[in-house]
Parts: sequence; C-alpha cells; structure tokens
Amino acid sequence: MNPVDFILTKRQGGTHAAAELDAVMAAYMRDDIPDYQMASWLMAVCFRGMTDQETADLTRTMAASGDMLDLSGLPHTVDKHSTGGVGDKTSLVLGPLLAEAGATVAKMSGRGLGHTGGTVDKLESIPGFRTELSDREFLEQAASVGVVIVGQSRDLAPLDGRLYALRDATGTVESLPLIASSIMSKKLAGGARSLVLDVKVGSGAFMKDLDSARELARAMIRIGRHAGLSVRAVLSAMDRPLGREIGNSGEVLEAADCLRGRGPADLQELCVILAEQLLAAAGIPKSREQLLTMLHDGSAWSRFESWIAAQGGDPSAVSGLPLAPDVFELKADRDGVVSGLDALAIGRAVGALGGGRQFKGQEIDHGVGIRIEAGLGSTVRKGDTLLLVRHRGGHGLERARELLAAAVRIGASVDVGPLVQDVIAD
Amino acid sequence: MNPVDFILTKRQGGTHAAAELDAVMAAYMRDDIPDYQMASWLMAVCFRGMTDQETADLTRTMAASGDMLDLSGLPHTVDKHSTGGVGDKTSLVLGPLLAEAGATVAKMSGRGLGHTGGTVDKLESIPGFRTELSDREFLEQAASVGVVIVGQSRDLAPLDGRLYALRDATGTVESLPLIASSIMSKKLAGGARSLVLDVKVGSGAFMKDLDSARELARAMIRIGRHAGLSVRAVLSAMDRPLGREIGNSGEVLEAADCLRGRGPADLQELCVILAEQLLAAAGIPKSREQLLTMLHDGSAWSRFESWIAAQGGDPSAVSGLPLAPDVFELKADRDGVVSGLDALAIGRAVGALGGGRQFKGQEIDHGVGIRIEAGLGSTVRKGDTLLLVRHRGGHGLERARELLAAAVRIGASVDVGPLVQDVIAD
Repeated sequence: MNPVDFILTKRQGGTHAAAELDAVMAAYMRDDIPDYQMASWLMAVCFRGMTDQETADLTRTMAASGDMLDLSGLPHTVDKHSTGGVGDKTSLVLGPLLAEAGATVAKMSGRGLGHTGGTVDKLESIPGFRTELSDREFLEQAASVGVVIVGQSRDLAPLDGRLYALRDATGTVESLPLIASSIMSKKLAGGARSLVLDVKVGSGAFMKDLDSARELARAMIRIGRHAGLSVRAVLSAMDRPLGREIGNSGEVLEAADCLRGRGPADLQELCVILAEQLLAAAGIPKSREQLLTMLHDGSAWSRFESWIAAQGGDPSAVSGLPLAPDVFELKADRDGVVSGLDALAIGRAVGALGGGRQFKGQEIDHGVGIRIEAGLGSTVRKGDTLLLVRHRGGHGLERARELLAAAVRIGASVDVGPLVQDVIAD
Repeated sequence: MNPVDFILTKRQGGTHAAAELDAVMAAYMRDDIPDYQMASWLMAVCFRGMTDQETADLTRTMAASGDMLDLSGLPHTVDKHSTGGVGDKTSLVLGPLLAEAGATVAKMSGRGLGHTGGTVDKLESIPGFRTELSDREFLEQAASVGVVIVGQSRDLAPLDGRLYALRDATGTVESLPLIASSIMSKKLAGGARSLVLDVKVGSGAFMKDLDSARELARAMIRIGRHAGLSVRAVLSAMDRPLGREIGNSGEVLEAADCLRGRGPADLQELCVILAEQLLAAAGIPKSREQLLTMLHDGSAWSRFESWIAAQGGDPSAVSGLPLAPDVFELKADRDGVVSGLDALAIGRAVGALGGGRQFKGQEIDHGVGIRIEAGLGSTVRKGDTLLLVRHRGGHGLERARELLAAAVRIGASVDVGPLVQDVIAD
C-alpha cells in the first residue's frame, strides 16, 4: 500500500480495508511511514470519519500492536473505564464490590496526568501497597481475591500511544472514531470480557454535552460488539467533582468510607449503578439493593481489606492515612447557594499543590488535597467554609487560591442536574 | 503562535491573519515546526480552503522566503507561466517575439521533470548556449537584447519548494489555493510586473476540465491583483501535444520554424494569443496581425539570433541541430481518423527514450524525440506513419513503443475542440 494512496483514499471519503489499515499501521510502527504522512491521514479522518468496521479494525490493530493480557482462565472478567474526572475514586470502590459480587477485576491502570488523578497513584498512598506484581502474582491474586490492580508495566497498545501523541501535536485529537478506538484498544488489550464505560459529561469533562457523550458511548459500544465484548455505558455529570475529597490520600479515605456504607451519596450512587450495569453485562446480575447491602454489611469492606493485604498494603493503616498538615479554608463572601463548582479548576488546584503531575514521571504529594465543605446546591452564609485546602507549607497555595477563587460561584439558586444522566446498554 | 492552535483554527474553518501565517511559515523554515504539524495543517487547508487574502498572504510569504529578483530597472517586464504541457516550446518563441514588441523577458526557468520538458533543457541543445550567467550579465542582456533565459541558479521561493515536497508526500497537492499560491510565489520572486498564465486543460494536463482550469486561473489572477501584478490567463487544450515535435532538439527546431513564420498552426496560434494578452497586460498592446507580421518578416527571427548569440550560442547551428540517428515509425493498423493522441503517454515515451528526467540531476539526451506525422483529426490509411520516433540504438524503445501503442487511437471520426478554450483578463 502506497501511503499517499492510503491518505488520498480517506481524503476522498473512501473506506479502508482491514488488511490495508493493518499494513499501513504496521509500517508506521516500523518507522517505514513517517509522522507527516500519518498526521495528514489523521486530519483527513477528522473530516471524513471512519465507518464502524474501519473503527473496529483500527481498534483491533492498535490492541494487537503490543502485549495483550490473557485473562481467559478467570471467571467473569470485568473492567471499567472512565473518560476522566475530578475526585473520581470509583475504581477503588468497584474493585472489591464487583469481586464480592462474583466478578474478577484484574487490571492495569494508568497514573494521573494533568487535572485527573490515577488509581495507581491513589493506591500508592497506602503504606506497603505494591503496584508492581509479576505476571504470576497478578493472575494468582485475581483468582484468589477476585481483585488486583497494578500499574501499567506491560506495553499495552503502543500504536495507540504513538498515534495519541501525534494527534495531540497536530490538532487531531477531537474525532469520534479516533477517540473511541483509542480508549477501546487499551481495553481490548486489557483482556476483560465485559466493560462498563463511565462517560463523563460537563464542563470538567472531555465531552461537554450529553449528545456528544452519547455518541462517544455508542461508538465504543459498537466497537465492543465487533470485538465480541459486552459493553455498557453510564453517562455521569462532571460539571462538579465526584464526592467531597480531591487528592490521593483523601480519596482513598473517602473510598474506604463508601465501602463501609458511609460514603457521600453521589459516589455511592455512581458506584452502585456502574456495578449493576457491569454485572448485568457479565451475565451475573445483582440488584442495586443487593449491592447496597454489600456496602453496608461489611462484606465489601472485608474484600477491600483482603485486596490491600494481598498486594502488601496495611489495611488497618487506611483509616489513618496522613494528610498534609497545613490548612487553608476558602470562605463564602456572601449569603447564597453554591451555584457553580468547577471540577476542572479544582483538579488543577490540587495539581498546583503538588498532588498531580504536569509531566510523566513527576513525583506527587499524596497528602495534599481539597475537601468540598459546601457542595453544588448547598445554602451558605457569608463566612462559611466552602473548600478546605490541605497544603504543605504553602507550596503551590497561591496558584491554587487563584484557581479556586474562580472555581466556586455563589448565586441565588441553582438547578442541579442528576448525577447519572443516561445508561446505554449494548 | 502555538502550532496546534494554528492547525485547529484552520480545521475549524477559521481564517489566519497575515502575521500569523508569516510567523508559522518562518518557524517552519527554521525547523521549529516539524513536518507533521505542517502536513496536518495542509490537509485541513484541503478541506477548508483559504480566503483570497490568506492565499495572497501565503504567496507573499513564500515569495519572500528566498531571493527576489529586482527587475525594476527594466522596461515592461513580462513573464509567462505554463502549468505544464507536452511539446510546449512557446517560451522559445515568446521570448524574442515579446522583446521585439517592446517588452523585457528576463527569467529563470526550471528544468524538466517527469513527462514535461524544461525550457532550459531545450536551450542547452544549442551548442555553446550558456544557461548560467552572472547577475550582471543577466541584467545587462535583459536591457540590451530584451530577452534572457537562464537556469534557476537563485533560491527562488524555497518555502514553496519545501511545502510542495511535503504536499507531494502527504496527499495534499490538489488544493486550489495551495496550487495557485505555489505557482504565483515563484512568479512574484521572479520580479516581472505582468504575467500571462497558460493553463493547460485536458487529459495531458493537471487540470482535467475547463471549469477547474478556470477556477485555478481566476485564483491566480486574484493573487496577482493582491500583489499589484497585472495577470491574464489563456486556457489551452492539452488533450494532445502542442505542435508536432516532442523532444529537446526537435522542439528547438520547431520553435525556430515558428519564429520564421513556418511553424505548425497550433503553436503559432497559441504563441500569438499569449503574446497579445501579455502585451495588453503590460500596457504596450499589439494586435495579432502585428505579431504575425513579426513572425513572417524576419524581425522575430533576428531577435532570436541576437538572443542566442548573446548567451554564447551559435544561431547558425540551430537549423542543423543533430537529432538521434535511429528511427522507428509507428504505423496505422487500419484506415480511419486519428481520434486520440494522448499527450501524457507521448511525453512519457520521450522520457523513456532518454529525453526526460525521472529524477533531479539526471542527464538527458537532447536528440531523441517524437514527431507527430498524423495529428489529432488526421485521416489515415492503414500503413501510414503516425509517429516518427527518433531513438539512440534502441535505448528505451521497447517501453516507448508500449506507451505509444496505447497513446494513439484510430476511430471513425473525432470532434477536435479549439486549441484556445478561454481567455481571462484581470
């Protein structure tokens, strides 16, 4: 396949055969096709789109470009993917909850970058917790405990990694088939048979409105169907952060509360709905009541303790995780209702405090963070604490305060939309 | 200017300010912007187009990226650009004809590549002719003889050269504003004040139909207007070759015939119309009759002799230029009318014989070529000679015969369209 002909096919609105896509992508991975030709093709895709078949083919090619986890020996393997939110600690809750319900959660998870945190970073705030296991340890723990989450040690979908970096530099990120195939390629390589997608919607999310979030969800569900996966999607609000804690240790504490039935209502609701959908997709359905019972009767908590212990962590230390010692309180400057709570700005503020990464490999401070004292829709009086900022000796505080001052709005009233905005089944 | 924002502006259908285009193109020339970002932008331009102002700004930036010839001290400087044809030796006729009419033709001309020949290659078939002159020699000859044509020794519009090479490799050649600005940037750098564009139309040309040729002509005329140039366009048929000779020495002989009023009718017609339009654009109009008189009364020929002598050539040698000694005749295999004479295939056949270049810097054989014995629309009988092929010891003959067998069609009748299909004035 001549690369110029390949580009022209897409430019003219044509369709690529699977073998053609495979050959071109393989040549790109061998550096036989340069970035400038791939960039031109990616821009043509932005204008011309891809058929469902092309999107599924590209996804498969990206998934097959590196290691693919073989979880076929494990029962009811499930995975969740979130398109990225602030305060999103659902994976920490879902892992033990799903395992308790009979599913297997065996996943490699990324680290945080930019304004969103990473599950592996959160887990590393637990003393002794090992995020690197051997393949054998990984599979044995999945079989015995039902839940194991490690860092991404294996080279999953490296073609996706290369294409994403190129898209980022060439104005070709925003393309439904490219976004959908990028996400799904990593999930295919991850090896789980059933998948729930938590598609975040709103100002703090990649998808700003419900229609585009639905489109993305449906595109990913179609890719899953092509690949023989059972996929469902939950569309959840990300105009405000999820839960009350943002920052690594604080989020672990909040997840632990949720696993004992004491978590904030929004976090509990989303976890239960995600679990319900995923278990239904996996063919081992549980009702919301059954799942709530697991959170309240100690069984989910007990599974969490087994999990943490299995990976070398000290479960008894979780409730006493150290938080940054210095505190700043953002206060209301008038009476009213919290009418805006910008998740993106709050995520960035935690990053400024040292709790997030601006670049790969950066060390992070697990103890810093922000606690929301007055959530969206709360009635406040002048002088009430809105946000509690935990910092370390003022590091990054000035920048965080700037961001937070603009993040909270107080108005006369606010119409708070539902947390879960839609559920889409395969 | 962040290059990703620059790309996104065009992707979203926006317009670039002149300063923005300047800055990005300057960064590209410094290698501060990589090819992959430029390729992505070029593809976005293919889909979104450019406004007249953007196209004019890009043209100016490309023209200013290298040397710009200063012809301001010369009277009525004129230039002709052809979009590329087979058998097109009009520059050899127009140079002396325009000079005789009072204009100054002082140009740097390219060498041939692919199926089209280059004026400089043709001139070099004349013994002694120097295609490299010093700047001073160039300007002095322009002033004294009124015509001087040399090879492109100066670095004219190098940004255009880089962009064109990138477009060629990324499926982004076909874009009206990019094609128009590419051509016009070199013309702007060439320094002439008036310009006639010979836009070829038909199977042997880049523009396959009259509408797209008109569009291109109008786009180039608008760029010229923005740049303060007087530009006209002649749209001429390139479904068949121009004239009867294809190949360097043969074309010089045919041009010399034309300058003595003995050239083939189509070549003479096109030269006279191009000269008429260019002289009108330059404000020193001459009628077609006046121009024909110059071709017939010896004055154009005399100017040609002065020109060739001024550049070191031997005018008396022109009429005896050596042609390749070996001859193959392609004969008609039936009675009928020549209903197809594929210019592209004939151009390629001359290339195969050694008369053209497949890559830059390749040596060429000036003596090989093809003479059309039965032009489009000629009635022929079985066994009549259609094409006379001059080769050197059979080199490339097999490939040339293959190409030529498919190039000539004999049918019952043919509707030959006019040579000049439209004239567009500023």
